[in-house]
Amino acid sequence: MTRTVVESNSKTSIIGFDQPFSVIGERINPTGRKILNEELERGDFSRVQADALAQVAAGATILDINSGAVFSNKMAEDVRYADNNFVEPTLMRQLVEKVQEVTDIPLCIDSSVPGALEAGLEAANGRPLLNSVTGEEERLELVLPLVKKYNVPVVAISNDDTGISEDPDVRFAVAKRIVERAADHGIPAHDIVVDPLVMPIGAMGTAGLQVFTLVRRLREELGVNTTCGASNISFGLPNRHGINNAFLPMAMAAGMTSAIMNPVALPVGPKKIAAKKEEIEAAGIILPEGMDDETFVKLFGMGSTLARPGKEMEAIRAANFLTNNDEGGADWIKFNKPAGTGGASGRGRRGGRRGRA
Amino acid sequence: MTRTVVESNSKTSIIGFDQPFSVIGERINPTGRKILNEELERGDFSRVQADALAQVAAGATILDINSGAVFSNKMAEDVRYADNNFVEPTLMRQLVEKVQEVTDIPLCIDSSVPGALEAGLEAANGRPLLNSVTGEEERLELVLPLVKKYNVPVVAISNDDTGISEDPDVRFAVAKRIVERAADHGIPAHDIVVDPLVMPIGAMGTAGLQVFTLVRRLREELGVNTTCGASNISFGLPNRHGINNAFLPMAMAAGMTSAIMNPVALPVGPKKIAAKKEEIEAAGIILPEGMDDETFVKLFGMGSTLARPGKEMEAIRAANFLTNNDEGGADWIKFNKPAGTGGASGRGRRGGRRGRA
Repeated sequence: MTRTVVESNSKTSIIGFDQPFSVIGERINPTGRKILNEELERGDFSRVQADALAQVAAGATILDINSGAVFSNKMAEDVRYADNNFVEPTLMRQLVEKVQEVTDIPLCIDSSVPGALEAGLEAANGRPLLNSVTGEEERLELVLPLVKKYNVPVVAISNDDTGISEDPDVRFAVAKRIVERAADHGIPAHDIVVDPLVMPIGAMGTAGLQVFTLVRRLREELGVNTTCGASNISFGLPNRHGINNAFLPMAMAAGMTSAIMNPVALPVGPKKIAAKKEEIEAAGIILPEGMDDETFVKLFGMGSTLARPGKEMEAIRAANFLTNNDEGGADWIKFNKPAGTGGASGRGRRGGRRGRA
Repeated sequence: MTRTVVESNSKTSIIGFDQPFSVIGERINPTGRKILNEELERGDFSRVQADALAQVAAGATILDINSGAVFSNKMAEDVRYADNNFVEPTLMRQLVEKVQEVTDIPLCIDSSVPGALEAGLEAANGRPLLNSVTGEEERLELVLPLVKKYNVPVVAISNDDTGISEDPDVRFAVAKRIVERAADHGIPAHDIVVDPLVMPIGAMGTAGLQVFTLVRRLREELGVNTTCGASNISFGLPNRHGINNAFLPMAMAAGMTSAIMNPVALPVGPKKIAAKKEEIEAAGIILPEGMDDETFVKLFGMGSTLARPGKEMEAIRAANFLTNNDEGGADWIKFNKPAGTGGASGRGRRGGRRGRA
């Protein structure tokens, strides 16, 4: 049984064939998050810490820390800020330290900048996961020595100097080559978590089948754990959660052992609340004065203004159970306890569906 | 590519490896449905017809017709009604005729009574699916000649005279024996849809893995289509829909091509509406007079008082897409169009999740 051990000072998170699915929380990443990016530029880490706690509460087992910020204001004053080799190592160290102030969950150090990877490895407690090496010659020579030096596991992405192949056999070959090159450095296969690369199903109808086949081959032929950027599968499509909720259990049935994803449901924001209030006013419903937003949102079945597990987490917990990685369904039953009895979800109703007669 | 052709007078429903998942609607079944059973005893088929239409609207591709009623009142007057060999053939014929009055979807004739199977085969238009034969010697000798005589496909359940084995290898062997016995009668493998039997995951932790392995073997080694009573997997557990929603895509990833299931979401009933009204009154919310139930239920995010597709149908449609059986996602996109634009679900919002950076 392949087991990839990721550790903080006090906690161990095992990625493995015989383990519940490993959820690597992706939220601490300034890429595409304008407000977070600006906060980081000002040295404000409050949202980072809140995101860390929310993801852990939602069920993340590892937190990804990506330092890929762009500091446009500082850049205007000091040209060195235009270079991510200058920005990221310092930022990565800060991010790791700030997250470790509030949680002891194991971390995943995520950057394309080698200096940031090393800064993260130095700052992180325990045995973090490194994200990532690729099959590109330069990356192999930069990252594998770090993996060996710090004795950490690493995410291996199956693209190389020729780019990302649409042919899954080529992606498998790239993964195999990375595993072989790692072995040359004395790095065992169980410390490599392969990302076979998930294409958007909207652009390539075989994208799902490719992943399922690749995951199975990677597991059976190379004996490695696997991961993916799960939400890529639904890029550009309506009701992305609906696709993701099916994709994750299917990938798990094929043997996928982790994913880099957001475990937290989008909280209901002020815009949605205002729109709903307009709708119900138009319907002639009168609200009492001073009702707080969370009470309002709950009464009208809109979800919650607070962070809570996304539907994908329900799908993953069900799939843990269905792959025999939740003994006796203890986690499933706890997760589905009605609100107020210690469960996480508040969905304690019984489906009431008869078994087939 | 194995294809099992099921037909009505005007419609063809193909169960196959290269087809969207075949949803065999299970609702027309008096077993465990007290009110329906009583209505059938009185000769009232209105609910049967409504259930037929609701299941078709929700996405069923075949309708199962089960005649297993118990006519307790008639039994008291006429002892012949204690015998299902007396009750079911007449009832089956009536059920088939009543359903065919309102829809031309292909049917699945479901009974443990041979006379009812033959009555259904005679009454049904086209080429219905027969449900079922088992590996029991007596059933093989009773049912396979009917399958041959009427040239129809048949569901084969993998238990035999020794009962239902907990060992999946034994269940595979039973399925194989049925396929071989069918061949002796001149019935090809593509006309056999094997039900490998789904155990409740709450009672047997390996139940999910067993099904996935069996489905793969049945497909690869015997070349047969497969089905199951999908909701059995979650028997006795909280939040059964959560389990079912993950199980179906996982089984589809393993190669399952159909399921006997309820495609319709439970409509919100008067009890739930009354409870909600109490809750909102206690919160100080004032409703306008004369608000109809459907408007109320929609405004408070409770679902609908009307029949609509269950969440399992969303999971199946997503999994069709992910197994490359929904070209260009045309069906997914149609299903997820916002309400009022011709979509089925009214869930047209975009998830807004970023792809992995």
